[in-house]
Amino acid sequence: MQTPQIVQPIKSIDELASFCKRAGFVFPSFEIYGGMAGFYDYGPRGVELKNNIKAQWWKSIVQDREDVVGIDAVTVNHPKVWEASGHVASFTDPLVDCKNCKSRFRADTLAKDILDADVAGSDLKTVTELLKKTNVRCPKCKGELTEARKYNLMFKTHVGPIESDENVAYLRPETAQLIYLNFKLVQDSARLKLPFGIAQIGRAYRNEIAPRDFLFRVREFEQMEMQYFIKPGAQSEQSSAAPRTKGASENKKFFEQWKKERMNWYLSLGIKKENLRFREHKKNELSHYAKAAADIEYNFPWGWGEIEGIHDRGDWDLSQHSKVSGKDLSYFDDEKKARFVPHVIEVSAGVDRAFLAFMCDAYKTEKERIVLKLNPKLAPIKAAVFPLVRNDKRIVKSAGNVFNELKKKFAVFYDASGNIGKSYRRQDEIGTPFCITVDFDSLKKKDVTVRDRDTMKQKRVKIKELTGYLEKQLR
Amino acid sequence: MQTPQIVQPIKSIDELASFCKRAGFVFPSFEIYGGMAGFYDYGPRGVELKNNIKAQWWKSIVQDREDVVGIDAVTVNHPKVWEASGHVASFTDPLVDCKNCKSRFRADTLAKDILDADVAGSDLKTVTELLKKTNVRCPKCKGELTEARKYNLMFKTHVGPIESDENVAYLRPETAQLIYLNFKLVQDSARLKLPFGIAQIGRAYRNEIAPRDFLFRVREFEQMEMQYFIKPGAQSEQSSAAPRTKGASENKKFFEQWKKERMNWYLSLGIKKENLRFREHKKNELSHYAKAAADIEYNFPWGWGEIEGIHDRGDWDLSQHSKVSGKDLSYFDDEKKARFVPHVIEVSAGVDRAFLAFMCDAYKTEKERIVLKLNPKLAPIKAAVFPLVRNDKRIVKSAGNVFNELKKKFAVFYDASGNIGKSYRRQDEIGTPFCITVDFDSLKKKDVTVRDRDTMKQKRVKIKELTGYLEKQLR
Repeated sequence: MQTPQIVQPIKSIDELASFCKRAGFVFPSFEIYGGMAGFYDYGPRGVELKNNIKAQWWKSIVQDREDVVGIDAVTVNHPKVWEASGHVASFTDPLVDCKNCKSRFRADTLAKDILDADVAGSDLKTVTELLKKTNVRCPKCKGELTEARKYNLMFKTHVGPIESDENVAYLRPETAQLIYLNFKLVQDSARLKLPFGIAQIGRAYRNEIAPRDFLFRVREFEQMEMQYFIKPGAQSEQSSAAPRTKGASENKKFFEQWKKERMNWYLSLGIKKENLRFREHKKNELSHYAKAAADIEYNFPWGWGEIEGIHDRGDWDLSQHSKVSGKDLSYFDDEKKARFVPHVIEVSAGVDRAFLAFMCDAYKTEKERIVLKLNPKLAPIKAAVFPLVRNDKRIVKSAGNVFNELKKKFAVFYDASGNIGKSYRRQDEIGTPFCITVDFDSLKKKDVTVRDRDTMKQKRVKIKELTGYLEKQLR
Repeated sequence: MQTPQIVQPIKSIDELASFCKRAGFVFPSFEIYGGMAGFYDYGPRGVELKNNIKAQWWKSIVQDREDVVGIDAVTVNHPKVWEASGHVASFTDPLVDCKNCKSRFRADTLAKDILDADVAGSDLKTVTELLKKTNVRCPKCKGELTEARKYNLMFKTHVGPIESDENVAYLRPETAQLIYLNFKLVQDSARLKLPFGIAQIGRAYRNEIAPRDFLFRVREFEQMEMQYFIKPGAQSEQSSAAPRTKGASENKKFFEQWKKERMNWYLSLGIKKENLRFREHKKNELSHYAKAAADIEYNFPWGWGEIEGIHDRGDWDLSQHSKVSGKDLSYFDDEKKARFVPHVIEVSAGVDRAFLAFMCDAYKTEKERIVLKLNPKLAPIKAAVFPLVRNDKRIVKSAGNVFNELKKKFAVFYDASGNIGKSYRRQDEIGTPFCITVDFDSLKKKDVTVRDRDTMKQKRVKIKELTGYLEKQLR
């Protein structure tokens, strides 16, 4: 009988970070110049895994559906966008400095770590008073702390030759707003009818005070976001006094549908059920734009952490942009001959956090090897081809032919080192599901050995059936 | 006999820009806020075409080869990177202001447009004197112009809570430098031996004074770059006095090889031969890092314009980063037991410029339709499925089944409007190579009509053979 305990095969996130560097998945950015906190580059294996994650998301959200289309918008943004969205005023963290050693800390993190107090949503004065009253001092040097002040997390730049206030632009802190801006252009050109979604994958930027936990909290990252536009129903939800009739239930219906969809996506790509959970936001946690919110959390080595958010944003965003720009962003319902501002259910996933979750879930240390048990659809390389020996021309030639045939369809790898044991181990580490060896028998029988990454079992497959065999396994 | 004249089916780039907006390919960014010059968003059709271009490049450069791997690095960059590369000092345009109306112009553009003079490589004083001597004045108000001054094209931001000089970071103006920074980490982790390449697709940013020509000169764009590292040969090329022996010929060999490779890529994806050409850079045009350079140019509606550059960069970049960082970026040759800094042949393509070239080449106005004759591999949608009528349940159901089967493998589109003529036209406009209609005959004979976008000819194909048929056509 199995013990029902959760196995955490990674001891710490640092173990994963150093593995990622050694195995070519992720490198700290600008290492030769001493690094820059919160920035990471994806190496040869990492970029393939990340691309596969993005491709699977795009397939499930856009390609497999009739009701969702994609866009790809710019990352340097007009300031009005972020004024309208509320980010210029409110996308801030409370910051305190040490008067002695000049170190900077998030006041809410200090309150949580030192006092075990949750100050989310509190104003600056409350936070400052709490820290003063409880005599919280600098964790580094015990120096006195300043009052808490607001610190905006958006990166700022200037467009055009002059660095003046009127030329300010922001690096987008999320991709979502760019979808709202393009709502009308997309709907008109693609002739979409409600309900429909607009999806986007792209970079976002947050000037975090304290980046941490490897890829979990970084300053530059990628998001996969989809905004699903729906009819608000008869009763407006804005008036909280109104009875919760169809409006609420339509939002609720799609909110629950998308929660389920998105959870299933992670499960279908192999993340273990016990390592995933929903966390519903309490009323006092909700952002200014949200009517309801749920996180999908993964059980990371340091504990549960958000990898995706599903939000009922009501008509907040379209209404705001309409108000600030003076442009009509409503929708005309042909059937009901009615005009209204659609409501939005958002699914917002972090590419890098998904990457981290897939890696944590797949990484196993066994007696004689490290193996990444990635879903074959996500594996950077689908199959590796080896000649059993490197000094037999016929075997090397045949292995080359097998490689050339497979690479038409799959990401494959060729390694003629002639040390099969070592080659297996290297492929196990980067999650390659199949290793194919061409040996002396292959010359006569026109077949090869196919070794399975997880079971390490081998079987013979005819060379001419190899493409079909792999296609079936990778489906 | 055909007239050997070049047909330019697009009259102007503005015609294409307005088509792109209407048909959902490309929208001006921030339109509801009055726009921002030099920024464009890709719509539902555009994002698919752009993704297909990037996927084809990645396949040909990374997946189909044994000697090239990919990376994906960050866009907000440590300032040392761009000091070492020479960009902080030299990535500038000469800028003049009008003293009267305060408009800003590139001095070199004024010299070219007004005086037909090429001042590339000239210093600021020379340019200023030329404009003064020839009495060039503001093109807008005839006001007097200031002296020319250097204007750096990099977007600047700050990392961390303080906006001070020591926290400056730049948005990368090219992706290439990020490859050099990671050279050692990639080579070690992927155990690569010379010659090998590192490829990257990603955003780059240039704060252009005067963005122009739709997607051609924009402020935020994407690049597809690959740096191919080679042995420099016995003689260093740095000493120009030395005879041009193996060093030069190795560089020359790979330079010519990559020129050919890259030209073939555009041709293989359907761009007409007469619309492509090489332009070799003259000695006085070469950038500080380049020993040789050739552009691939496309014949745009306004004339020939660069869509890709192939450069022999020698050991400039690795040597510079090694010098400035103090870190060893040399390579150890196991066979020759020698250590040296590799040379680099770079291929650098603009994703948006390639997009523009593919669109210009494919766009045709015919008597009764606009048709995008895109290579099927690039087409946003591979096939559209229509029920002949929308009020026959059996036909609608069968069309739905065909759609559901095809979408497992292809990007397909379903349209149940029941107006086949209109549906054909709409698909022609967005370049869909095949339209599939389910009609009354389909119910009995289990076949469908497949219409070819270019010839407009129709043929009957058995439903169960449809996937195989499309796979063959799209190969």
